[in-house]
Amino acid sequence: MAYINDRRHSQSIEENHKSIMGKVEIVLNSLPMSGGDGPNSYSKNSHLQRRTTSLVKETIDKLILEKLNAKTLISDSNTFHIADLGCATGPNTFFLVDDIIKSVETSLRKSNSSKPEFLVFFNDLPQNDFNTLFTSLPQDRSYFAVGVPGSFYGRVLPQSSVHMVVTVGATHWLSSVPKEVLDKPSKAWNKGKVHYSNAAEEVVKAYRDQFGRDMEKFLEARAKEIVSGGLLVVGMCGIPKGMPFSNLADSIMYTSMADVLTQMQSQGLISEEQVDTFNIPIYSASPEEVTVLVEKNGCFTVASMELMNPTAWLKRPMNVEDVRHWMVCIKATMGSLFINHFGEHLLDEIFDRLTAKLVGLTEKIESSYREKVMLFFALQRK
Amino acid sequence: MAYINDRRHSQSIEENHKSIMGKVEIVLNSLPMSGGDGPNSYSKNSHLQRRTTSLVKETIDKLILEKLNAKTLISDSNTFHIADLGCATGPNTFFLVDDIIKSVETSLRKSNSSKPEFLVFFNDLPQNDFNTLFTSLPQDRSYFAVGVPGSFYGRVLPQSSVHMVVTVGATHWLSSVPKEVLDKPSKAWNKGKVHYSNAAEEVVKAYRDQFGRDMEKFLEARAKEIVSGGLLVVGMCGIPKGMPFSNLADSIMYTSMADVLTQMQSQGLISEEQVDTFNIPIYSASPEEVTVLVEKNGCFTVASMELMNPTAWLKRPMNVEDVRHWMVCIKATMGSLFINHFGEHLLDEIFDRLTAKLVGLTEKIESSYREKVMLFFALQRK
Repeated sequence: MAYINDRRHSQSIEENHKSIMGKVEIVLNSLPMSGGDGPNSYSKNSHLQRRTTSLVKETIDKLILEKLNAKTLISDSNTFHIADLGCATGPNTFFLVDDIIKSVETSLRKSNSSKPEFLVFFNDLPQNDFNTLFTSLPQDRSYFAVGVPGSFYGRVLPQSSVHMVVTVGATHWLSSVPKEVLDKPSKAWNKGKVHYSNAAEEVVKAYRDQFGRDMEKFLEARAKEIVSGGLLVVGMCGIPKGMPFSNLADSIMYTSMADVLTQMQSQGLISEEQVDTFNIPIYSASPEEVTVLVEKNGCFTVASMELMNPTAWLKRPMNVEDVRHWMVCIKATMGSLFINHFGEHLLDEIFDRLTAKLVGLTEKIESSYREKVMLFFALQRK
Repeated sequence: MAYINDRRHSQSIEENHKSIMGKVEIVLNSLPMSGGDGPNSYSKNSHLQRRTTSLVKETIDKLILEKLNAKTLISDSNTFHIADLGCATGPNTFFLVDDIIKSVETSLRKSNSSKPEFLVFFNDLPQNDFNTLFTSLPQDRSYFAVGVPGSFYGRVLPQSSVHMVVTVGATHWLSSVPKEVLDKPSKAWNKGKVHYSNAAEEVVKAYRDQFGRDMEKFLEARAKEIVSGGLLVVGMCGIPKGMPFSNLADSIMYTSMADVLTQMQSQGLISEEQVDTFNIPIYSASPEEVTVLVEKNGCFTVASMELMNPTAWLKRPMNVEDVRHWMVCIKATMGSLFINHFGEHLLDEIFDRLTAKLVGLTEKIESSYREKVMLFFALQRK
């Protein structure tokens, strides 16, 4: 698969979660969420989503007002073109798009421009459930909506066809598991692990190199698609430069996943081969390594590059319910990876064991690093 | 529903037909198809589709070369924008688009222009199966593909955003059954019939007026979306001016449908109310009435307006197998109408009875009018 998006492939009861949860919470899978009036309730998850995305919203709003010359950009067509890459099935892409449109309208009002039309390109892999996306489009939307099937690691839109591209919670998904990690004779063979966390340096390098190649392709494609002066805004999993991944809360999850799988293997439920070839293709990038890739690409200037704390709103210590809730999100996010590799019949078993294990590690998760693990950057096309 | 497209809603074994049959044959539901190496075979239906669409292909090709100044149209962006309205799930929309692209490329080569990029908007109702459309897009396509959910009786694209719009086999579907036809006290109450064929003049007028209102909205929306000099190409059910619908082969089908439903009502399988409120919202227009609507709209010049014989390739008399095959297509096309109104459990029963009835009328169908029942017109945006 080219990249795995968040709320698409999982099954049954998670569907509800998938559709109502905030994109940022679900995709930035390192984020445990607080409990509340029942972990599955819409109001609760909607509330959370608003708290977390508001972080991104304000920054995007500021960027549009300060960096984007909307009036000049649309002087020919009077239509402003936005793309959300890795949009999944909504509804959070709709909130994001609404916020962007409001900001652009404010910017245009300030420059006394006439009200433009808006065209929004909703992109995701061809396997994404576009039917759900299309039937859940807001009835009262103020824009023309189109769906764009294709991997954003290649071109998905014509040359110079968009004024603003946004992608939140998608570019940490690598285009594939690095091949060295699956190569038994290689030093990067990631036996008994599911991620580069706590793995050999060769594994870390294989993931890092894969991210580098993917981001290169991503920037190259966007450089062709975005008009001069247009903005590219990205939110993804991040990490401070030099910090080992093992410091992060996610590391405890990945280690526990490996433990659960090894245990199930010893009980004859899955094979050793299955365990050794299972890897989660997610990479957390530092601002510094992205900056290097942007400079190498050469077509963009950096308008913003920062690490954010995606759980800044959580003002109390994490509890057991938070961990359970986190696992519901992770199951919704990564469920398809497990289904594809181990079979659908084992999904619940794996996540029941994983949740039980992590609940027992709540204090350790609480004390692990969860601060600056969301990388936000905005680039302006030269 | 806004309009019903062809291959979307039908079930089970018809899926195969839906996916392999030609758009023109299926949608222009008046067209019986010849038998051959098994009525359901892919090769057969694919073969038929190519024969029939080649009719449209040549005319479109000529229009692009003679009427469209592609070089000037794309001088700003070097991207040519095509929309297929009512595209359904493919694959025939892909053949159509490929043909158009080849013609535009030929036109541009003749004017020594550089090779442009192509963006194709595939439009259909939000309920269309875009997932199937997107996953069956040709891998080696030479264009960027996007899906546009929405009724083409309203705006679906930004102002002046397309150079060429094509819609084949969709605009004879009215946006809804005319409301008078469902109104018991009205003179247009269409008791015991399923169509305006052989119906009271008030029913015919209700359908005609509905078509007029729909086509007005259609032209109004396209006038906003198509750039000056751009083309709008339409293929739909047609009829020579003044000819009563009862002359057409389709009339025999609609009458037989009503007979079957009345019979089933008398056997207590469906209610009188169900029969009386079932109407098929399809209208066959004459060139003259479309011309009036185009003139009223005022934004287009008529580049082409003609009636075609969609079964010109059928060089021998129709036989029983042709009728059976025709009914398979009709079931695939209109199945959802019957399912929505009578329930899925009665679909096979209705079509088994209908097919048996029409097979017995093969000679009558053969001798009925099937010549100029496809209306083709091309308009150029002023």
